[in-house]
Amino acid sequence: MSIDAYTDRYLPLLEDELRDALACRDTLSMYYGMMQYHMGWLDSNLDPTEGPQGKRLRPMLCLLTCEAVGGQVEQAAPAAAAIELVHNFTLIHDDIEDGSSIRRRRTTVWKQWGLAHGINAGDGMLTTAFLKLSQLHDRGVPFQRALRAQRILAETCLAITEGQYMDLAFEAEMDVSLDGYLCMIRNKTAALIACSARLGALVGGADREIVEAYARFGENLGLAYQAIDDILGIWGQEERTGKSAFSDILTRKKTLPIVYALADPELRAVYGQKVLTERDVARVVSILERWRARDYAEQIARRHSKQAMRCLEQAGQATPARLMIRDYALSLLDRTF
Amino acid sequence: MSIDAYTDRYLPLLEDELRDALACRDTLSMYYGMMQYHMGWLDSNLDPTEGPQGKRLRPMLCLLTCEAVGGQVEQAAPAAAAIELVHNFTLIHDDIEDGSSIRRRRTTVWKQWGLAHGINAGDGMLTTAFLKLSQLHDRGVPFQRALRAQRILAETCLAITEGQYMDLAFEAEMDVSLDGYLCMIRNKTAALIACSARLGALVGGADREIVEAYARFGENLGLAYQAIDDILGIWGQEERTGKSAFSDILTRKKTLPIVYALADPELRAVYGQKVLTERDVARVVSILERWRARDYAEQIARRHSKQAMRCLEQAGQATPARLMIRDYALSLLDRTF
Repeated sequence: MSIDAYTDRYLPLLEDELRDALACRDTLSMYYGMMQYHMGWLDSNLDPTEGPQGKRLRPMLCLLTCEAVGGQVEQAAPAAAAIELVHNFTLIHDDIEDGSSIRRRRTTVWKQWGLAHGINAGDGMLTTAFLKLSQLHDRGVPFQRALRAQRILAETCLAITEGQYMDLAFEAEMDVSLDGYLCMIRNKTAALIACSARLGALVGGADREIVEAYARFGENLGLAYQAIDDILGIWGQEERTGKSAFSDILTRKKTLPIVYALADPELRAVYGQKVLTERDVARVVSILERWRARDYAEQIARRHSKQAMRCLEQAGQATPARLMIRDYALSLLDRTF
Repeated sequence: MSIDAYTDRYLPLLEDELRDALACRDTLSMYYGMMQYHMGWLDSNLDPTEGPQGKRLRPMLCLLTCEAVGGQVEQAAPAAAAIELVHNFTLIHDDIEDGSSIRRRRTTVWKQWGLAHGINAGDGMLTTAFLKLSQLHDRGVPFQRALRAQRILAETCLAITEGQYMDLAFEAEMDVSLDGYLCMIRNKTAALIACSARLGALVGGADREIVEAYARFGENLGLAYQAIDDILGIWGQEERTGKSAFSDILTRKKTLPIVYALADPELRAVYGQKVLTERDVARVVSILERWRARDYAEQIARRHSKQAMRCLEQAGQATPARLMIRDYALSLLDRTF
């Protein structure tokens, strides 16, 4: 069975949950409309449209994991939706914090409706995630497991805000250590991917050690995924990434290859400037080459990718869905090497 | 027994829970420091201090209700703390959305550490509320009740963001109806006070109808409380409210007395201006007097106050703690009449 066969089964289930979570209450069509706009379902006049919707990577992983441990995906659907809502909450607030005016080729929520509504719509999106997750018991998930899922989601959200704090702090800091950077992406990116696999296994009824093996799998997958994203942010081709080459350098982002070479005085001098020219970018690239920073980032990606596969092998029986998780994970990582 | 006797027992319990919820994790002393600063525990250098901390009205109500229905307050303490954390999350984000630089006579979090950290610290505060609430079962609250508490908190938070959306929308709108205004404060203010009494009764083990009677009590108390706050925002004396007289008029807030008189063309003309002079304020006050807008707001406050007391009488046995809730509620409302 191909991943498309799973996608065809899972995505309609997930979309129903998401649309239910963000359905308009009472006369608040404008409020929920902002959230639905962010999801790509409405245009800026709040008329229906089919905008870009994101990859649904996290909920796919959640549902695949549930099925892999022998659970019913219908039961895990509220958890999968909750995770996607948390992901989108972070995007709405990140766009404000970064001052970004474009997301998925559309005006960001805060640019469209102003700062105050942007913050509040993000708060609403986070809250609908917890509300959606609280439906687990209605789908037949036992009380104890449903309550444990709530705690895991709250712990994950706190980790994400910790990671975001670190990311913001690193922007103003020239001495970012590799350990500090890896800790940041563990929280900011890997925690929610770990949560996806973890909740899928938990809701699916797996034993505790299997649930934790899936959590470690997800965390390592998330770390590898982010390392590759960092490589693509510098050396990626525009047609594949949707971003211009060297875009992360132009915006002076301190991603993995940069942090690796940050002991270099020339790099520190260039990154200390307010604005970078094309010539500066070329200088940074040649510094990164001198340091073999791309090799280093690929090595990190490979290490966590291998670690993820080992965790997956520890996660009980090799059911068809578990084999599919392996293929799916490898396809996500197969963007550079 | 006086309210002080309850306060002396409850506040240390509550403070322990709050400090546990916001305790520094790992090396993130700066991140949790921002939240602890907001709570009044640290100064802006993140050194310990004893700043103003707020009235703790909501958690007091939660714990009193738990005791009133025969529950153990130690079990309800995580719920009381979660409610106070939600309240403080709303303050951190409201200050950004209103552009306020001062809160409780101190610089606001976003003014102190910047917009991005301000948004993120608020997100963290909201998340710690859900995490703290997830400890209910550890204190012996049965799974089913603990899970129901999670859903009630999520519903309440969503109502608060809905109320905030309406409040922001009303700022840009001259046609605010009385119904619309009351719906806004029902969500923005009354929902969390209702949640306080509701969770106290639920965790305390009360029957469903008693829980709902306490919820209605809290909602009516919240509506009366906000109506009085609106009166004080115009006619309150500075030494009692900490705000200058007519402060809500100077900032052109559309509070209950204003909304009541908003059909008046002269009032609409004055409120349509960008900046109000002292003479404009005097004009607004005389328009409000002509409409008897203060009488109207007092009538609304009295109606909901009476309704709250009726709900309280329906809430089972008149235990000492229940009688104390009555006195406590009346003392909160006894600020104007």
